[in-house]
Amino acid sequence: MPKDMAQNTTIFTRRESEARSYCRGMNAVFTRASGSEMFDAEGNRYIDFLAGCSSLNYGHNDADMKAALVEHISADGIAHGLDFHSDTKAAFLSAYEEKILKPRGMDYKVMMTGPTGTNAVEAAIKLARKVTGRKNVISFTNGFHGMTMGALALTGNKGKRGGAGGGSLADVTHMPFEGALGDNVDSLEMIDAMLSNPSSGIDAPAAFIFEPIQGEGGLNAASDAWMQGIEKIARKHGALLIVDDIQAGCGRSGSFFSFEASGIKPDMVTQAKSLSGFGLPFAALLIAPEHDIWKPAEHNGTFRGNTHAFVTARVAIEKFWSDDKFEKSLAEKAVVLTTALKDVADLIDGATLKGRGLMQGVDVGSGELAGAICARAYELGLVIETSGAHDEIVKYLAPLTTSEEVMREGFDILLQATRDVTGNMKLAAE
Amino acid sequence: MPKDMAQNTTIFTRRESEARSYCRGMNAVFTRASGSEMFDAEGNRYIDFLAGCSSLNYGHNDADMKAALVEHISADGIAHGLDFHSDTKAAFLSAYEEKILKPRGMDYKVMMTGPTGTNAVEAAIKLARKVTGRKNVISFTNGFHGMTMGALALTGNKGKRGGAGGGSLADVTHMPFEGALGDNVDSLEMIDAMLSNPSSGIDAPAAFIFEPIQGEGGLNAASDAWMQGIEKIARKHGALLIVDDIQAGCGRSGSFFSFEASGIKPDMVTQAKSLSGFGLPFAALLIAPEHDIWKPAEHNGTFRGNTHAFVTARVAIEKFWSDDKFEKSLAEKAVVLTTALKDVADLIDGATLKGRGLMQGVDVGSGELAGAICARAYELGLVIETSGAHDEIVKYLAPLTTSEEVMREGFDILLQATRDVTGNMKLAAE
Amino acid sequence: MPKDMAQNTTIFTRRESEARSYCRGMNAVFTRASGSEMFDAEGNRYIDFLAGCSSLNYGHNDADMKAALVEHISADGIAHGLDFHSDTKAAFLSAYEEKILKPRGMDYKVMMTGPTGTNAVEAAIKLARKVTGRKNVISFTNGFHGMTMGALALTGNKGKRGGAGGGSLADVTHMPFEGALGDNVDSLEMIDAMLSNPSSGIDAPAAFIFEPIQGEGGLNAASDAWMQGIEKIARKHGALLIVDDIQAGCGRSGSFFSFEASGIKPDMVTQAKSLSGFGLPFAALLIAPEHDIWKPAEHNGTFRGNTHAFVTARVAIEKFWSDDKFEKSLAEKAVVLTTALKDVADLIDGATLKGRGLMQGVDVGSGELAGAICARAYELGLVIETSGAHDEIVKYLAPLTTSEEVMREGFDILLQATRDVTGNMKLAAE
Amino acid sequence: MPKDMAQNTTIFTRRESEARSYCRGMNAVFTRASGSEMFDAEGNRYIDFLAGCSSLNYGHNDADMKAALVEHISADGIAHGLDFHSDTKAAFLSAYEEKILKPRGMDYKVMMTGPTGTNAVEAAIKLARKVTGRKNVISFTNGFHGMTMGALALTGNKGKRGGAGGGSLADVTHMPFEGALGDNVDSLEMIDAMLSNPSSGIDAPAAFIFEPIQGEGGLNAASDAWMQGIEKIARKHGALLIVDDIQAGCGRSGSFFSFEASGIKPDMVTQAKSLSGFGLPFAALLIAPEHDIWKPAEHNGTFRGNTHAFVTARVAIEKFWSDDKFEKSLAEKAVVLTTALKDVADLIDGATLKGRGLMQGVDVGSGELAGAICARAYELGLVIETSGAHDEIVKYLAPLTTSEEVMREGFDILLQATRDVTGNMKLAAE
Repeated sequence: MPKDMAQNTTIFTRRESEARSYCRGMNAVFTRASGSEMFDAEGNRYIDFLAGCSSLNYGHNDADMKAALVEHISADGIAHGLDFHSDTKAAFLSAYEEKILKPRGMDYKVMMTGPTGTNAVEAAIKLARKVTGRKNVISFTNGFHGMTMGALALTGNKGKRGGAGGGSLADVTHMPFEGALGDNVDSLEMIDAMLSNPSSGIDAPAAFIFEPIQGEGGLNAASDAWMQGIEKIARKHGALLIVDDIQAGCGRSGSFFSFEASGIKPDMVTQAKSLSGFGLPFAALLIAPEHDIWKPAEHNGTFRGNTHAFVTARVAIEKFWSDDKFEKSLAEKAVVLTTALKDVADLIDGATLKGRGLMQGVDVGSGELAGAICARAYELGLVIETSGAHDEIVKYLAPLTTSEEVMREGFDILLQATRDVTGNMKLAAE
Repeated sequence: MPKDMAQNTTIFTRRESEARSYCRGMNAVFTRASGSEMFDAEGNRYIDFLAGCSSLNYGHNDADMKAALVEHISADGIAHGLDFHSDTKAAFLSAYEEKILKPRGMDYKVMMTGPTGTNAVEAAIKLARKVTGRKNVISFTNGFHGMTMGALALTGNKGKRGGAGGGSLADVTHMPFEGALGDNVDSLEMIDAMLSNPSSGIDAPAAFIFEPIQGEGGLNAASDAWMQGIEKIARKHGALLIVDDIQAGCGRSGSFFSFEASGIKPDMVTQAKSLSGFGLPFAALLIAPEHDIWKPAEHNGTFRGNTHAFVTARVAIEKFWSDDKFEKSLAEKAVVLTTALKDVADLIDGATLKGRGLMQGVDVGSGELAGAICARAYELGLVIETSGAHDEIVKYLAPLTTSEEVMREGFDILLQATRDVTGNMKLAAE
Repeated sequence: MPKDMAQNTTIFTRRESEARSYCRGMNAVFTRASGSEMFDAEGNRYIDFLAGCSSLNYGHNDADMKAALVEHISADGIAHGLDFHSDTKAAFLSAYEEKILKPRGMDYKVMMTGPTGTNAVEAAIKLARKVTGRKNVISFTNGFHGMTMGALALTGNKGKRGGAGGGSLADVTHMPFEGALGDNVDSLEMIDAMLSNPSSGIDAPAAFIFEPIQGEGGLNAASDAWMQGIEKIARKHGALLIVDDIQAGCGRSGSFFSFEASGIKPDMVTQAKSLSGFGLPFAALLIAPEHDIWKPAEHNGTFRGNTHAFVTARVAIEKFWSDDKFEKSLAEKAVVLTTALKDVADLIDGATLKGRGLMQGVDVGSGELAGAICARAYELGLVIETSGAHDEIVKYLAPLTTSEEVMREGFDILLQATRDVTGNMKLAAE
Repeated sequence: MPKDMAQNTTIFTRRESEARSYCRGMNAVFTRASGSEMFDAEGNRYIDFLAGCSSLNYGHNDADMKAALVEHISADGIAHGLDFHSDTKAAFLSAYEEKILKPRGMDYKVMMTGPTGTNAVEAAIKLARKVTGRKNVISFTNGFHGMTMGALALTGNKGKRGGAGGGSLADVTHMPFEGALGDNVDSLEMIDAMLSNPSSGIDAPAAFIFEPIQGEGGLNAASDAWMQGIEKIARKHGALLIVDDIQAGCGRSGSFFSFEASGIKPDMVTQAKSLSGFGLPFAALLIAPEHDIWKPAEHNGTFRGNTHAFVTARVAIEKFWSDDKFEKSLAEKAVVLTTALKDVADLIDGATLKGRGLMQGVDVGSGELAGAICARAYELGLVIETSGAHDEIVKYLAPLTTSEEVMREGFDILLQATRDVTGNMKLAAE
């Protein structure tokens, strides 16, 4: 069944910038979506193992959020309110306080940054520099934090950095993430050694920023011990600890925050992607109260505090995080996921599993192979993407709400795609 | 009638970051809004002369956009689609091409950047540097382009720049905007002289970026001659011309783009704020096709291409820009506005009018006075803000769709507020 | 009489870097020099109107300095002493205190920087940033301050800046020098306006640095009023005032410091070039005592405090600056110089005089013409160079001790060269 | 016998900047010096184990250089000649070519930079960036390359970096030197891993720069294997290889260049300190011919090519490097040195030897102890200094020409000083 035949895409090639990307390989014209399924203009169905890069952790068009949003809009609820007080913002903040912060013993101020992850990251590093009076921020190999200049300076990816066109990406030191130098090198020891040597040339850091599970960088999951080690080094050297939980947060790791099990207490946490619950643009920066030294509007933005997102985010919190049922379901699904990915890995020599929770994937050894598998899966009706420095990882990011039935349907496609591609490769090699 | 009494705002002071700003002076808890009116939790009505800082040019909750959006959501239309093809994106691009670009003889590629103005600006300067192989970007006194590090480097405001915490704001040369050095100095001549002198120390520029009407910077409206002059200088020195039309665009100046009358042909144009029509987060960068050298995803972002915004933006374009009726109404309202602001200015010694189109204000000479007037207006039920390097300008940014009746109602409050404040000041002085 | 025929220069082309410059146009192999005369390997005599770019203000091999230096060396005087105490350093400092500082009512600490002008400039800006806690330094069009990265960032010349190979030349704002924007623009007003506008984007400056007479930049001599204006602006905005007196100092302007007549009181003054009196590498930074907050060795260098230079510098000070005879002779010679240059200028349409004191030249309108005149002068036995953003100025920098007789001899050559070149040009044009 | 009593040092405290350093701890007023001995104003004799930080490798006032220099000056030889051709420069270049380059199979262009080590380093990194079109330069922990902004960015020392006053030290990545992360971490592997990972965030380097034996950084001597490894990594990643041989060169390591035994072929080599042979300011940059793409004067400086230094440098080369006698004597003295330092180390628990050749020292474990030993040695008539990130190393840098007799005399003082200090410490501890 050939997908997207007769779907007219000339308007995109004619008018949309060359910067567009996902639509090149997966060129259906999508029209509607529900839960873990997407449909194109011809009615073809796709299982979604990408979920807006983890922006749709609760699936497409969740019925409860949809109802609340439609009701809000129909009643002339505020659509855009700058950072004015609103009933919807109050309700979101109250839910966030009651269901997210309090049960975890957390005390953070919530900063409504511009509604993109990169904006929350920019706010975090600006604030860390203000608080400490230092400039240097330490980020990590394979880290991805955004595409605006401040966040891009933190990001490791060479291609992304090249987009700066030679503009200065200064005031950042890139250090090896856990395991980045192989099993024999303890990156914690190395980092502490560099910072402890007064002649290392590494200026005293304002902050460390890392993703507990690196999303774009290849599903590298930091161990609890490593996160604790970074926290300890940060404290020792007078630096703030910033966790970028944009992709791994909101349940993706198995808990609301991806660092909960580690016991670390970040000074700041960035949130975006699935924070709205519905895929709406929304980001926030959690700030330990003692560091909340912003002057009014010192970092601002027109769309900070997306009111529609307040509505859906509140529903998402109340629906999924009022008790531990959802979290328990995630643990169960993670086991299913691991088992399924092992089956995929078994088809490929040397393939290994990466990640944790509902953020796992298979390192198939090359970007070429991973790309071919994802392309074949798409032909078979599964939306799935690669990640990693060499795009060598087939990454599972399906909605957390995906039923086991749909999960298995998707895995079957993935297995078939893998068999098709590896089979073809063997044939080609013979 | 005391406003917002008994409206509980403790959740905001307890949980929201100190970065919040508008809600401090205007502390109602808003619940709904329609057209040019907002209502708080106690049912108090406010006339809105701020319009989300020009993000609500078509008013709150326009009935047609609302209907289209509710229909889209109800039908499980895509809420988040990364940069996949979608029917809604196609419809938006087609409307934009037919109603905006073609009638104006424009040929631009549309880049869906992250849905914030600052993100579109970052994309523009990154691309300008890639295209030219140069680093230096020339921006202007009182210019405001955003709060992420790349855009903040372009921004003039000292307080905003201070938010960088000492991080490097490099690769930018700040030049005087038209009139910034007084009537006797031709800033065009000065800029050309500096760039033409091979020993000026000003590195050859990748681009010039300016706002035709500076929004945050004090409603400084560039003349057509000045804009043409900058274009000429840019061409002469091999630099790209970027117009930041985020605040002044989408009809605010009286035409869709604020530079239309000047005849200049920018290489790039940034759009955001009212682009969605409904106040939803949305931004785009228009790029002359020959400069669209982005590699796929070289600048990307999770929320690029907000699908809900595509829906409302399409309606806004079709409803307001299919013929010249709306544009004609803007010309008429601009006259009304000018007349009314003159009445305000007449109450204050030395006050002058600033801006053009539906983006005008009164320079009352001091931030203290302007602040007092806006505060008093708020007490009387009018939401209005200041702008300018010293916050010395009372700025009118009401929805473009505001009826003359509501305009006059608002002006009456503004006049009363001005009388109250200046009267009190005189009393205090006696 | 063809110069330097048979002088073997192959070792230079074979072994010396392409960075070499003066020797390309003036390719004699020099062997000895005395006063204002240089001699090449074939015994040809050259009058020196370049004087090591003002490093030989007292002529080549002054007899008294020579005797003192030979005696010092012969007696095993210290040749290299890091920054240890030495009798020669004490004698230099005492002479400098008694003959230079005290009579002028100046109170400065003397910092022995690395023995190059650029090193003194680097020390000055580092210290200004330390003292003020600010980063931005304001330098001026056509300013030349050195070739190391910190000083190069201050330097205006595009070709020199290009030598940085794209390395960051940050933290500097380049402003127009007096007259740089033409007679109708008051650069002081413009600078103050930019700094006074809190939305100009020009960060509060740590310091202003300028040359009272721009040497490389085209003999632009600042008026006393302009220097006073810059001092006033610096004070107003909390910035330090640094005078770079490397080329214009040590009598070149007619007084020991080139800014004496203006009455300004710089916070720091850089000295180099003729400070040793003998052409030996030597530089110093004068620092107002309240700003001398260096920690020991916080800026250091192996050759700081060249002991041989202490010997000759002391003699130079005692010989030329113990009374006002030398200074009076400079005033007389400046008149002779002006008169002679007028004669040169009279030969060229539109030519004008630049500079003041013994640092004057003729702006002949183009680098091509200026270069041709200097090249012809060299053929006739006169060493003289161009300066200016376009190399359009024929620059007189002869030793201050040049007798009027030798001055006139040199002027005759210069006039002849000018006539030859302009005559040939006219012939070529006919 | 109390040293320097009655030596008047008030002129220094009154007039010299607080930046002065060596003279604080060793406050004699020196008047003359010969070979390895210095004498103060009271006639006290000091053995010099510092040698101008390796700027006096051939001792103070070598008789042959002295004679040549006095003859040159007496005959009105050029003292300052910009970069004109001169007989003395030709003679120096010829000697350098014949005695240094040719016998070692080297083919370099010689660039006369400003006469300081930092200036040669600045020239090197500027050129590397020009050649490669890249900005990032990799330097190493504990590296010291100078105090001007470009070189300071490469330097590791926190205190020195602090002298920049917050100015930008950009475009440099600091990597661990051999052994900097302990014996278990292979810094070569780590560096290659970081550069080979396209998502490491380390931009492709223009160059690597290192000192084969780190002078200021603690006498860390790189192994031949490590230097070869860095060369290999540089080639692999398209970067130039720059050796900073300022302190370790000119015989200090046992051969003229400190990297000779390793067989590496640097693209550039910096030289300064002992290059003049006599302690005169002089520096040069050796450039592989294919990289000598400087335009004339693209990096220049008033004192580039110190003519007096040409005279003495030529004598030094001819006298010490015409045959292998001097080099053989260095090997013998290195054995003597190692033996003597072992005796010192034996007095201190845990003390270890550092360095190689005639550039060795004892790591005594703390800066406090090392400082106390040097201070006591000075009281006993020996000038010796510390080095290292914590000043924890007692460093031997005596003239290479020091006789074994004087070496032993100095070692006796050093042993006595060590005994005195450690004895006192034990007493204090009891």
